[in-house]
Amino acid sequence: MKHITSRDNPLFKELRQLATQAQARRKAGRTLLDGVHLCQAYSQQLGAPEICVVSESALANTEVNQLVSASLLDAAQKICLPDALYETLSQVEHGVGILFVVPTPARAVPAALTETAVVLDGLQDPGNLGSILRSAAAAGIRHVFCSNGTVSAWSPKVMRAGMGAHFLLHIYENCDLVEVLNRSKIPVLATSSHTKTTIYQSTLNQPVVWMFGHEGQGVSAALMAKATQTVTIPQQAAIESLNVAASAAICFFEQVRQQLT
Amino acid sequence: MKHITSRDNPLFKELRQLATQAQARRKAGRTLLDGVHLCQAYSQQLGAPEICVVSESALANTEVNQLVSASLLDAAQKICLPDALYETLSQVEHGVGILFVVPTPARAVPAALTETAVVLDGLQDPGNLGSILRSAAAAGIRHVFCSNGTVSAWSPKVMRAGMGAHFLLHIYENCDLVEVLNRSKIPVLATSSHTKTTIYQSTLNQPVVWMFGHEGQGVSAALMAKATQTVTIPQQAAIESLNVAASAAICFFEQVRQQLT
Repeated sequence: MKHITSRDNPLFKELRQLATQAQARRKAGRTLLDGVHLCQAYSQQLGAPEICVVSESALANTEVNQLVSASLLDAAQKICLPDALYETLSQVEHGVGILFVVPTPARAVPAALTETAVVLDGLQDPGNLGSILRSAAAAGIRHVFCSNGTVSAWSPKVMRAGMGAHFLLHIYENCDLVEVLNRSKIPVLATSSHTKTTIYQSTLNQPVVWMFGHEGQGVSAALMAKATQTVTIPQQAAIESLNVAASAAICFFEQVRQQLT
Repeated sequence: MKHITSRDNPLFKELRQLATQAQARRKAGRTLLDGVHLCQAYSQQLGAPEICVVSESALANTEVNQLVSASLLDAAQKICLPDALYETLSQVEHGVGILFVVPTPARAVPAALTETAVVLDGLQDPGNLGSILRSAAAAGIRHVFCSNGTVSAWSPKVMRAGMGAHFLLHIYENCDLVEVLNRSKIPVLATSSHTKTTIYQSTLNQPVVWMFGHEGQGVSAALMAKATQTVTIPQQAAIESLNVAASAAICFFEQVRQQLT
């Protein structure tokens, strides 16, 4: 394990950029996983990160120690930082001081959509995106396509809310979603309050593409035109509708229910 | 409409305290609704607020003007502030400058629980609480009981995430939840990954109490002992489980589905 103690160390400077600048993460095709839970989830699913960074005091933590010395991490570069330096990298308050530098895979959109997938058009809230990724993974969905205007899936906030779901999914970012949907061989479903068919009445024991949009404005008109079916979650109250991540969870698990029965 | 232009005005100082201090809100039994959507939802459900505050520039906005001059608001005290003063009250960036001061009803726990209800034990995240309130209201659930350690339902962040659901619900805060559950005449359900009975197999076309807990630690052991049944949302992936607000949405709407069929 290499010890870095100077703020002027080039590798430390690079880590600092990855920690603080979305553009630096995008340019490098790398992101930071912050905290022992995310790092454990990553190594279990995908093995060694490029770099494993720990704070001096975290080395006294049993979980961190086990993770850092696990054979799964043999291929990683390992760095130890004084606590004061480490804290400039981490957004987790009172967290256990470990983070991974990992690549953010840029995936090519498949030639045809034949498996259940999610397309997200202009989703803004990191917590909502993380929750949707988590629900998708929990429901056994593998493909998530995000439009240009959707918050970056690999930002630290989305990573934290995703709780490791990122490592089970194929996430495609900056997609032209109309182009993606042109490749769909399966029904494309959008939720709408202007339709009578409920999700409980629609046939979901088959692969479908689920479409969700911006928290305020929903899915763009161009994209909505690509829906082969609109469905509604029947609501009992005079309020504005469900949170988008709650809607997605309800839809994904109605599909799970129909597939199980 | 009264115009206030000085930061030293006693009413302005009081508004500033309500805007910035949780303790001041609690002590006063009042909170602020920030933004035209929440204010519209409030007046439609509950009529006039105690005070309606607008910024000078917001008066040029048609929606704000209609709302402020609606007969529904006749009973409200109306205040206009210069934009610079107004902005020190609002947490909504680039929002339309209107807010309401409204009472936060302190409700006595009913003698018996006979209608579907939600109990929340130590929930931490304002976004999660707001989303759960919204899902509960959308599913036609009326009663929500929050433990001492649960984030305040009337904080500005929870209000914003709730999108008006607060005004359709009976929210009971700082509850002794064991005491609440002792009054239940209906099944008390907790979700658990250690059980085999799925929500799809359990009988939900009847009133039940749903129990959800802290984002990391779940429901306390003392409370878990009060569950008459544990149920699971069947998950397809090796990840840590769903976000608590997503879980709640799935449970509430499985109950809606069973009640509809």
